[in-house]
Amino acid sequence: MTERLLIVGGDAGGMSAAATARRRVPTDKLEIVAFERGSYTSYAACGLPYFVADMVPSADRLVARSPEKFRAQGIDARTGHDVVEIDLERRALRVRDTDAGTESWEPFDQLLVATGATPLRPPLPGVDAGGVHGIQTIGDGIALRSQIDTGEATRAVVVGGGYIGLEMAEAMVRRGLSVALVEMAAQPMGTLDPDIGALVADALRAMGVSVHLGTAVEGFETDAGGNVTGVATTAGTLPADVVVLGLGVRPNASLAADAGIAVGVTGGIVTDRRMATSAEGVWAAGDCVETYHRVSRRPVAIALGTHANKQGRVVGVNATGGYLAFPGVIGTAVMKVCEYEVARTGLTEREASAAAFSSVAATIDGSTRAHYYPGATPITVKVVAEKMTGRLLGAQIIGREGAAKRIDVIAAAIWNEMTAEELSQLDLGYAPPFSPVWDPVLIAARKAAEAVTDAGTTG
Amino acid sequence: MTERLLIVGGDAGGMSAAATARRRVPTDKLEIVAFERGSYTSYAACGLPYFVADMVPSADRLVARSPEKFRAQGIDARTGHDVVEIDLERRALRVRDTDAGTESWEPFDQLLVATGATPLRPPLPGVDAGGVHGIQTIGDGIALRSQIDTGEATRAVVVGGGYIGLEMAEAMVRRGLSVALVEMAAQPMGTLDPDIGALVADALRAMGVSVHLGTAVEGFETDAGGNVTGVATTAGTLPADVVVLGLGVRPNASLAADAGIAVGVTGGIVTDRRMATSAEGVWAAGDCVETYHRVSRRPVAIALGTHANKQGRVVGVNATGGYLAFPGVIGTAVMKVCEYEVARTGLTEREASAAAFSSVAATIDGSTRAHYYPGATPITVKVVAEKMTGRLLGAQIIGREGAAKRIDVIAAAIWNEMTAEELSQLDLGYAPPFSPVWDPVLIAARKAAEAVTDAGTTG
Repeated sequence: MTERLLIVGGDAGGMSAAATARRRVPTDKLEIVAFERGSYTSYAACGLPYFVADMVPSADRLVARSPEKFRAQGIDARTGHDVVEIDLERRALRVRDTDAGTESWEPFDQLLVATGATPLRPPLPGVDAGGVHGIQTIGDGIALRSQIDTGEATRAVVVGGGYIGLEMAEAMVRRGLSVALVEMAAQPMGTLDPDIGALVADALRAMGVSVHLGTAVEGFETDAGGNVTGVATTAGTLPADVVVLGLGVRPNASLAADAGIAVGVTGGIVTDRRMATSAEGVWAAGDCVETYHRVSRRPVAIALGTHANKQGRVVGVNATGGYLAFPGVIGTAVMKVCEYEVARTGLTEREASAAAFSSVAATIDGSTRAHYYPGATPITVKVVAEKMTGRLLGAQIIGREGAAKRIDVIAAAIWNEMTAEELSQLDLGYAPPFSPVWDPVLIAARKAAEAVTDAGTTG
Repeated sequence: MTERLLIVGGDAGGMSAAATARRRVPTDKLEIVAFERGSYTSYAACGLPYFVADMVPSADRLVARSPEKFRAQGIDARTGHDVVEIDLERRALRVRDTDAGTESWEPFDQLLVATGATPLRPPLPGVDAGGVHGIQTIGDGIALRSQIDTGEATRAVVVGGGYIGLEMAEAMVRRGLSVALVEMAAQPMGTLDPDIGALVADALRAMGVSVHLGTAVEGFETDAGGNVTGVATTAGTLPADVVVLGLGVRPNASLAADAGIAVGVTGGIVTDRRMATSAEGVWAAGDCVETYHRVSRRPVAIALGTHANKQGRVVGVNATGGYLAFPGVIGTAVMKVCEYEVARTGLTEREASAAAFSSVAATIDGSTRAHYYPGATPITVKVVAEKMTGRLLGAQIIGREGAAKRIDVIAAAIWNEMTAEELSQLDLGYAPPFSPVWDPVLIAARKAAEAVTDAGTTG
């Protein structure tokens, strides 16, 4: 008998599950159908800023695998198919074929909900004006780029100073636009501590971005044709031909919630370690779920392709009789904005405090290479550790080439509950083109260890 | 009463100990004297290839801290002072002032032996000819560079295909010389498995180096003036105006051994975890010691500035009443040769077998960045894991920009005895400029995990 696995959503998480399941079970034992509302499967939304920046010539380059390729591999990927209802009693999906305008019921034995995330869109006057762009789908990216390609837009305003906001600011600087960034908080990148966030603000200004912190958007001014002309803020109106909304996303869990599947405090679908939801035979993966933060021990919803892919693989194994657990996350993130690289992992000081940790922190200025090696650039590394135990809680990095991915070794150390002192002794790769004899990560760890104890035992 | 800590050797390990001890104990409680045979303290021997390549304009740039600076900090650094005997009974050093030609006895309460490593110099005919250079001290580097600066040398032969040999080959390619490399083994970089070593050989050839593997040097041919004209090998004579001996080093433990201090099977001074030698009140650090390999559980002698610095810090703490242990090493190393980056950590397949591990390995070809992001380059990652448990044993990487330092996260995983499957789920930094959505490290770990089990449990 052929089982039927249906997948709601054709993004990275859903398609990673499909591919894993397909490798494990042949077509005659398991039918796999994925329904994607849009026109693309397995696309990299995180690549959109580079498409807008014209660093990636065509949107097709962002598609890892087309529906045709999936079908050739025995995965029935149906684009233009919008799942409008999950009926758990009936064990079927109600699916709307958006081209044909028809609806049908599709029965399933197992179901994967991979509905992704929904961008935040403030309910402000003028938010639907021409020239005001979200930046979530490939369609959004094409619309924005088309407007820039006309050459008529010269003034851009980015609303929101998070990852996507900063990446879009860079993209439009690269396209020659004059760019202003508006952020309600006192710093860009709320996922960093204020001291490191201030360095990011400096970097943005060095790129020529006009940075407006502590500034709220009140609305969007338009011309007679309904096109945006400015962004009204608490600090006055910023003229704009093009506006990008980079306010972040929330888990798109409404379809699951409507079916009675449990949704957590973060707004994401609740799963167990195998990515099983509260409903029998229903899995969830990707930006629509909440997951376990290994340091705070709290649920978090973090929209990131790498988690979606890993979770999809976990579902692909578990839905086909295997066992694989998703171990949770520690909030690692990296970002490039022009020549600056920014990274974080674990908890910031603020987050550590919110999770009831008593912590110490050390921030050092180092070099990415031996001081005498050409191209050595400054790097700032901040390490947060638990006060009495020295256990590593988090780290933040800002620098230039070769800075950001250094976060990975700290992530591995945090993952393994190492102390700052233990990290400071780790056997990391050393050669002058890559590192000073004390890698900046090791120096920061040592300084954090010194902050933990008052000398005596650790020097 | 003022105690007296004497240090034999002014290299990184010795001076790191001096600086740490100085920070912990004031001058009136502890006198610190370091004796260095040469003219420089705290210099970076690993920077010599870049000085020869003219990427570093002056040898002074390789000196982290001069004797004057140490003296200003209360550390009596005496260059041109050769320690010729350790008398443990008398608790004193016999020291020759090489400029004055005098000798004196210097009493100590505690002693640190940081005598470094001695380059291997084959006892072959002509090895002392003009134009045949070792490359260990700043003096060696100055001599070699001076010869190249004359512009008269056009043909270079590098003897030995290890780290220093390859770095010197690059240096001389950069200086416009025609470079041949002679290596007795069937591959360059004996610290890599043959499959990865073969990729290094390809990279060398791509740089224009003439690579002679499985070739032994039999002697050096000279002209009437005693200058080298060629290198006689088992594969014929290679013409040469300049020859660099890059045959590696062995621990320089003879001074300690002569004093009756225990030396181990590797030829390095034996220490406990606090870097104490077999003699009461005598410490050792740096390239002259052997240390503990955390994966093979065997003693190893690895000459590397980063270990020397860490060990020096450990001695600086322990010699001043603190407690700090050196946790051992796992053989992490990185190297850049022209645009190629090479890295290793843990055990190779060969080394794993020698340490009685039954292992599996997986090698993957990936990309340093998202496939659509400009500047993405190929990277090869090999992961070695224990057969039944999946425990990570080692890894090797070859690629271009952004490849080598990825070894650090695998090093941290090996250090913490993670399995390949656990590494494959690690929360590493992801953004298109830095990594595909599956970092090549994660892919290699996943493939190794798949090699460990025959699916079923891990997919």
